[in-house]
Amino acid sequence: MRILVIGAGGTIGRAVVAELTGAGHEVVRASRSAPPETRVDIADPDSVAALLDRVGELDAVVCCAASGALVRLDEGEDAEYLTGLDGKLLGQVRLVRRALPRLRDGGSITLTSGAFAEPTPGGSFAALVNAGLEAFVAATAVEPLRGARINAVSPGWVSETLEALGMDPSAGTPAREVARAYLTAVTGGDRGRVLRVGPDGTR
Amino acid sequence: MRILVIGAGGTIGRAVVAELTGAGHEVVRASRSAPPETRVDIADPDSVAALLDRVGELDAVVCCAASGALVRLDEGEDAEYLTGLDGKLLGQVRLVRRALPRLRDGGSITLTSGAFAEPTPGGSFAALVNAGLEAFVAATAVEPLRGARINAVSPGWVSETLEALGMDPSAGTPAREVARAYLTAVTGGDRGRVLRVGPDGTR
Repeated sequence: MRILVIGAGGTIGRAVVAELTGAGHEVVRASRSAPPETRVDIADPDSVAALLDRVGELDAVVCCAASGALVRLDEGEDAEYLTGLDGKLLGQVRLVRRALPRLRDGGSITLTSGAFAEPTPGGSFAALVNAGLEAFVAATAVEPLRGARINAVSPGWVSETLEALGMDPSAGTPAREVARAYLTAVTGGDRGRVLRVGPDGTR
Repeated sequence: MRILVIGAGGTIGRAVVAELTGAGHEVVRASRSAPPETRVDIADPDSVAALLDRVGELDAVVCCAASGALVRLDEGEDAEYLTGLDGKLLGQVRLVRRALPRLRDGGSITLTSGAFAEPTPGGSFAALVNAGLEAFVAATAVEPLRGARINAVSPGWVSETLEALGMDPSAGTPAREVARAYLTAVTGGDRGRVLRVGPDGTR
């Protein structure tokens, strides 16, 4: 399969590229810091459309690019509180709408949501973003979409990220294991499913 | 209590005003078609801020105003697909952020989410909006907020709306019964709760 991976430079993205390549697929790597040919910022719809024009026909799109922040509900300016609105929530929704017409029949799109192990002060907008994305993905299962399958991976904490933050990596999931969930979403038959990764499968 | 009801002119809003007034509360009625003093469009943050400035101190805010539409994922322009983003999702989030500093200590804000009885083609963005709002409300329970309580009512279909559409009103819930859920949210002790109204309580 020919697969576009957006966010290919991040901790999860690199592992996803390795996993897909290892399974014999052709991977086009895109990110905010990629060379001009594959540079993209999912918060910018024009940048996404231009990337899709350049890369041509695809069997699958995987988006591991997502940005967010913790801001308390009663603090900051709206723009700060709403971090993640374009970079994660609307960015991924718009990506789906633009990628659908470019997918070969029966192709797939895999998005990235996320989860807190427990409710976190400052996490109210991130909770909105993740729950919204997951409900969106589930709801796509009843749309025809020329057979296209849309799923999401909820990666929880990644061991490598925890380690980089000076925290206990065993509280997270190794990036390679997270990447396997993306491979399952791309190569399996799931439609409208959220694949949760983590020790208890509920994070 | 002194309570601001936004969307006071709608089917649910009128019933909420009647219920709150009947329980002895002072109600300030605001809507898009209200006289200039209480006119407001929740999609417009400036209009919300101006309204809150005009009405002064409040014990509670209830928002029954919400607009949306059914658009298939692979159809329409982004702006059409994203109907409800400002008018329901961000509009209510921004309302909370602006209303919090004006609330008397221990006040409350009650929002309106919604639900489909079953997955509906064209309902993917509405699903995102409703699930996002509900996760947001739940996540506010761990923020201090000077004791303010934030809840939502998920009204499902309202009998009067079904009747106006020429459909069977018994498939919905009478507006008066829906309004009681708003009264519970305002006068009870709930925090971060979604009150679901409907025959099986799960719609």
